[in-house]
Amino acid sequence: MVKKIDVTKFSNFMNPCRKTQIIIQPIMRGGIVPEEVQKKLFEEGWMRVGYAICYNCLEGRSDRISKPPVDDFLTNLADFFGGDFAEHTFASRAAQFAVMKTIADEISEDSKNFTDIVLTDPLCHYTTAVAAEMAGLKLIGVPHSGYPDYKVEPDSYIERVESIKKETGKLPALIAVTHVEPHYGNLNPVKEIGKIAREYDIPYMVNAAYTAGIFPVDMKDIQADFLTVSAHKSMASIGPLGFLITNDEWAKKVFKESLMKIDQPERILGKKMVNVFGCSVGGLPLISAIYSFPYVIERVKRWDEELKKARWFISEMEKLGDIFLIGDRPHNHHLMHFETPIFWEISKHHKRRGFFLADDMIKMGIVGLHRGLSKHFKISLYGLKWEEVKKVRDAFYYIAQKYVTEFKLNYEVPSNEELP
Amino acid sequence: MVKKIDVTKFSNFMNPCRKTQIIIQPIMRGGIVPEEVQKKLFEEGWMRVGYAICYNCLEGRSDRISKPPVDDFLTNLADFFGGDFAEHTFASRAAQFAVMKTIADEISEDSKNFTDIVLTDPLCHYTTAVAAEMAGLKLIGVPHSGYPDYKVEPDSYIERVESIKKETGKLPALIAVTHVEPHYGNLNPVKEIGKIAREYDIPYMVNAAYTAGIFPVDMKDIQADFLTVSAHKSMASIGPLGFLITNDEWAKKVFKESLMKIDQPERILGKKMVNVFGCSVGGLPLISAIYSFPYVIERVKRWDEELKKARWFISEMEKLGDIFLIGDRPHNHHLMHFETPIFWEISKHHKRRGFFLADDMIKMGIVGLHRGLSKHFKISLYGLKWEEVKKVRDAFYYIAQKYVTEFKLNYEVPSNEELP
Repeated sequence: MVKKIDVTKFSNFMNPCRKTQIIIQPIMRGGIVPEEVQKKLFEEGWMRVGYAICYNCLEGRSDRISKPPVDDFLTNLADFFGGDFAEHTFASRAAQFAVMKTIADEISEDSKNFTDIVLTDPLCHYTTAVAAEMAGLKLIGVPHSGYPDYKVEPDSYIERVESIKKETGKLPALIAVTHVEPHYGNLNPVKEIGKIAREYDIPYMVNAAYTAGIFPVDMKDIQADFLTVSAHKSMASIGPLGFLITNDEWAKKVFKESLMKIDQPERILGKKMVNVFGCSVGGLPLISAIYSFPYVIERVKRWDEELKKARWFISEMEKLGDIFLIGDRPHNHHLMHFETPIFWEISKHHKRRGFFLADDMIKMGIVGLHRGLSKHFKISLYGLKWEEVKKVRDAFYYIAQKYVTEFKLNYEVPSNEELP
Repeated sequence: MVKKIDVTKFSNFMNPCRKTQIIIQPIMRGGIVPEEVQKKLFEEGWMRVGYAICYNCLEGRSDRISKPPVDDFLTNLADFFGGDFAEHTFASRAAQFAVMKTIADEISEDSKNFTDIVLTDPLCHYTTAVAAEMAGLKLIGVPHSGYPDYKVEPDSYIERVESIKKETGKLPALIAVTHVEPHYGNLNPVKEIGKIAREYDIPYMVNAAYTAGIFPVDMKDIQADFLTVSAHKSMASIGPLGFLITNDEWAKKVFKESLMKIDQPERILGKKMVNVFGCSVGGLPLISAIYSFPYVIERVKRWDEELKKARWFISEMEKLGDIFLIGDRPHNHHLMHFETPIFWEISKHHKRRGFFLADDMIKMGIVGLHRGLSKHFKISLYGLKWEEVKKVRDAFYYIAQKYVTEFKLNYEVPSNEELP
């Protein structure tokens, strides 16, 4: 028998971040949904039903629906990223899986030239590894330069391809590179790697989950065969939703239709695309991505200003003392990873230990630091107004000053007034 | 270069079904989101950001988040369906894939007893076939009785298991049955099939996408190892979202953690669950499912009343003349499939051809008939108030009367006044 369930906790829980707080969590900043889009979704009644986009589905394929304009949206999205063909997927991870599955099918049909290895960047997102594992592929990374830069050289891809060739007599089945990696926000040399992939004739996937929708990305320019995109990470959209963009050649394979039959009585499934679960539903997230698309088209043009904010913030944080950025210098992305020995020192004296930092920030209306961490943290200020960026800077200064004084620590934190 | 994109069409499109229309599309009725849930989602600011649930994620696994109460919700959900363990997935199709993948791994490790065949019901949802295809498994269906009942006998599973055994010397790797199939709304004999699966010791999956959250479902009672659920189809939730519920024994396998390593430098992925993409994000759909859960718990208790509505509607429609239900009689589900020669006859005279029916219904505020169909259609009135059910009945009578008169057809449609 089913137990009695206490339902009050499911009716009454609240959002830790309702309306006015400043969000600084790096996986969230690119997925902030414009207020007018939220309003449209609510007021147009798109939240009324789970299958929000399926009223006028004639073909059993969400990508072919024209009311709302999913078909037009996907066509324009492919264009926007320099590709021939786009499909929506459950998330970038599902897009990556579709690619890996296609590659696995390719080599199982023709294993003469390619071995079951995906060559990737050493700091790739975990979803690249999971997608490879789901598709039964192995993963090999190139090396990075280690602390504190974690730099990856394009030539290391050549070296690794050669060593794989030497060992197996074959090429890796895919080169899969994270456009900007999620640990330090380092921009990978995707164009140079694209050139290498082209020279060896190895299929090339770029996971642009952190970049597509943030700054201009053109897959032709980087010679990518596949671009995987996260709508909730970088296209101002409700999640889960991703996109897979590809060229005409690969579209036939990666978006192939089902061959499945159920015999006796025989039924054929027709148009359903195997590698993306037949049809990826879409729902409210897809509506939100379409509404946000005009906004995303505009915001990528303002990337310079966004980068200026990040770099300004880095220099301000480093002036605080005993705080420094890890990763690319100058930095090329909004995701920043700081080492913060000063906060680590404070945590040793604080009764909340490492939790003091995120907790104090929350009290000041700033949410999204990973709770418990004080030795180092990741942060993003993408899309915030300058006064909000300054407010975040001021909050770190305030917290540092407060505890340095309280615990009589051997630091000299400049006062905010000294700063521009 | 990226072409200039005309963005107005992406900013200004409207919802064909905003607030007041009656929805009768069978895949939608179980996924109508309660108005108070829509309001909470909007007003609590859950639409503010794509990664809506990740503020307090400490472990990189959405299922372990306690604020909002995802962990508690999943525990209670497993209980609610008589299982030991529940995970959220991108949709029921992704839950089915996780099962198929697990089964494929099982037989690749031990192919002595099982062959790579999934035995399924002949009218299974296409996602079952796609999931099998994605996992590299074959699919074989049992026969049904054909037009007009499409009945499936439990014994046909025994016969098919025996014939597979005879042919391959092995058992099918999985029996996968759609609890209620999506074509005629027929209730499959899941309990009897469960007994058969148990006797042969074949793993057993029930796809409850159309039933879990509609009427009480207890997987222990039907002896299922896996229950796949669709939140947007039958749990009053925004999509895409599904659940996979299983027992302790299978949970270890289907939700196994990643073994993937990226060498040089070595990185291990730790807690990410391979078969569900590491972590299934959740986002706004998951929040909506939690808010709707108390409502779903209550509504399954009122199933008798819902079934009464469906059966009343069937008898009313059949009184109209030259309309009849296909599938189970008496009917056991809210999904109804009617053959409607009378509307087919009208369509031959109508300048809008088969489109007249859905179009006329829309004009009367009733949306969700498949546009273009008039020879037969699927419909559901689940969760509608009695006066709305009657309004739908009246609309069909009105349309029939109008065109029978206008086109001088040889039908006698009773007037509404004659009806109770």
